[in-house]
Amino acid sequence: MFNGVKTYGSDDLLKELKGKDKKPFFACVIATTDTASIPGITGAGATTELMNYTPAGDVELIIRGELRCCDIPPQTIVDGASAPTPAMLTKASLELTDVPYLMIDAGAQIKPDAPFALVNNEVITEFGGNIKDGKGVKNPKKIFEDSKIIAKELLKDYDYLVIGESIPAGTTTALGILTALGYDANFKVSGCMPENPHDLKKETVMEGIANAKIAIGEVDPFEAVAAVGDPMIPAVAGMVIESTKNNTPVILAGGTQMAGVCAFIKAIEPNFDFSKICLGSTVFVAKNETSDLMNIINQIGDIDVHVVDPGFEKTNHEGLKNYLKGFVKEGVGAGGSMLMALLLGYPIEDIREKIVDVCE
Amino acid sequence: MFNGVKTYGSDDLLKELKGKDKKPFFACVIATTDTASIPGITGAGATTELMNYTPAGDVELIIRGELRCCDIPPQTIVDGASAPTPAMLTKASLELTDVPYLMIDAGAQIKPDAPFALVNNEVITEFGGNIKDGKGVKNPKKIFEDSKIIAKELLKDYDYLVIGESIPAGTTTALGILTALGYDANFKVSGCMPENPHDLKKETVMEGIANAKIAIGEVDPFEAVAAVGDPMIPAVAGMVIESTKNNTPVILAGGTQMAGVCAFIKAIEPNFDFSKICLGSTVFVAKNETSDLMNIINQIGDIDVHVVDPGFEKTNHEGLKNYLKGFVKEGVGAGGSMLMALLLGYPIEDIREKIVDVCE
Repeated sequence: MFNGVKTYGSDDLLKELKGKDKKPFFACVIATTDTASIPGITGAGATTELMNYTPAGDVELIIRGELRCCDIPPQTIVDGASAPTPAMLTKASLELTDVPYLMIDAGAQIKPDAPFALVNNEVITEFGGNIKDGKGVKNPKKIFEDSKIIAKELLKDYDYLVIGESIPAGTTTALGILTALGYDANFKVSGCMPENPHDLKKETVMEGIANAKIAIGEVDPFEAVAAVGDPMIPAVAGMVIESTKNNTPVILAGGTQMAGVCAFIKAIEPNFDFSKICLGSTVFVAKNETSDLMNIINQIGDIDVHVVDPGFEKTNHEGLKNYLKGFVKEGVGAGGSMLMALLLGYPIEDIREKIVDVCE
Repeated sequence: MFNGVKTYGSDDLLKELKGKDKKPFFACVIATTDTASIPGITGAGATTELMNYTPAGDVELIIRGELRCCDIPPQTIVDGASAPTPAMLTKASLELTDVPYLMIDAGAQIKPDAPFALVNNEVITEFGGNIKDGKGVKNPKKIFEDSKIIAKELLKDYDYLVIGESIPAGTTTALGILTALGYDANFKVSGCMPENPHDLKKETVMEGIANAKIAIGEVDPFEAVAAVGDPMIPAVAGMVIESTKNNTPVILAGGTQMAGVCAFIKAIEPNFDFSKICLGSTVFVAKNETSDLMNIINQIGDIDVHVVDPGFEKTNHEGLKNYLKGFVKEGVGAGGSMLMALLLGYPIEDIREKIVDVCE
């Protein structure tokens, strides 16, 4: 349908959303869990100590174009080579399209020094624990309900929502919720490093499930996310359920983490109609041989997936070229925001050029 | 122009904003200052101890219809008689019109247990000090700049913004900023009690100006608000300046506190064009003999003021009838949100009926 997009499933919804006159709204849900402190589990930050600064840094980069919460930008570093945070891809799409957006904190330990909204607060947001202990999220039901409230206001005058996420070790918590709900996702979730630490992820999740004493495939979805999920999952699920109830379609901007959200939604509403939502992700997730997004999606249901290829091989930017080697892949709504730019009529060449601009 | 509205100045802007098809967005900026702890200075809460819970309670009542942060609802009590918080008037207008809204915290000591956005944060928002000490707001410039950022996103797809406030002792801090900037506002600011403690307000402001060692009429506007203002003032001013720069009109939903905001805006931008903004307030402020909104407004410039009379004498609600005796008068964007409902085509009778419904 577009140069630069490959569709798995139907493009009926995309046809409906396509048009320069359509009005989307972009939201990015941030959170952290202590799971990211497990050495080697994630590369969503320059060092293990900096992982929990990544969501706040992503928000600051998008809103301010500069960091405030720390000195070192979010990035993935492996063997001395680095790739910039996917927030740069999202920033480029937002600047190109001038689509309005709101950053939403569902429970990040480090708060951005920039305007954002809260959906997990009794005074200040709780952040997620280490799922290894079986204590991922303190209050998933409240996050879910409060997210419905904010989605209800945001969507009133928009044609569709695009929702991304920034949460380090989020593919591990995605594996957590998928496993707890009875899906076979081992060795199938994505990751931001070229080598995907699947054994460590599986071990972490299984230890968490054992510690929380939950029965795989039989547990209540909120208990599952409380044990081995993260605060982003109930937040995005609440927004999706509220939006589709009001006939506002949603592009879930992400890969296997958003598959985890879909599994959670289906566990809450077994007859949920997925025809008004789709995943918008990147070719880096879809083509990745260390994970299997489509296998997970097909286990859940009939959910369309559209992946965007920004063609970084055509740039001279070393960091972006590292995306081609398996660095980063996705995050902060990168794939979905590029898809949104395409739907609004911007060609992939312009999107790529803007990304390079933003990175330089 | 409408049954139930009296206009001071021109109604040109109202004619432009009128229409069922127009899309407004409502924002309410909350904050607290320790000024509210001065005994007798404000009645914006059931007791002096509860004053700082009022903004959070107002937000919870509008969003959830129930209190979470405390047990006793925000209200004004004098000699055993009470009147409900003006949040109920705003809630009625928002429910009637289904206009989308966002609550914005510019520095409230007590946070609402409900989704809201932050514009005064480095980790968590600072709240205002006691202006008696000459220390009203720690970082007014940052609040001002961050508010521009959030306004820029909010206004993109809306025809006009309506901005209200909830800040106890806000007329005292309004007197503070007006006095510091060289206006004669003594005995002219409004108040939520039938008897307006003008001497106490004046004494508090003059002590603050002395303690901050600022020169009346010569001080930098940000220094003025830092000394004797409140966090709401730079927040709303930033939103107004950003909105009008983008040709989006603004209804400032309030009385003498919003006059303080206008004075602050004029001090920052002496040639600011006030033709694309107006005040939307209540007849209770305009008719109040213990204050003089129009005198203050006329000192600042050519600013249209529209006051709404909800006709509470036609209801049987005792609390609302106390508005007729000088209780409450205005707040939480009550007047401006009713004006918005009128602009969207709802007759004043329907608005009044909805307010009674919401209160019961």
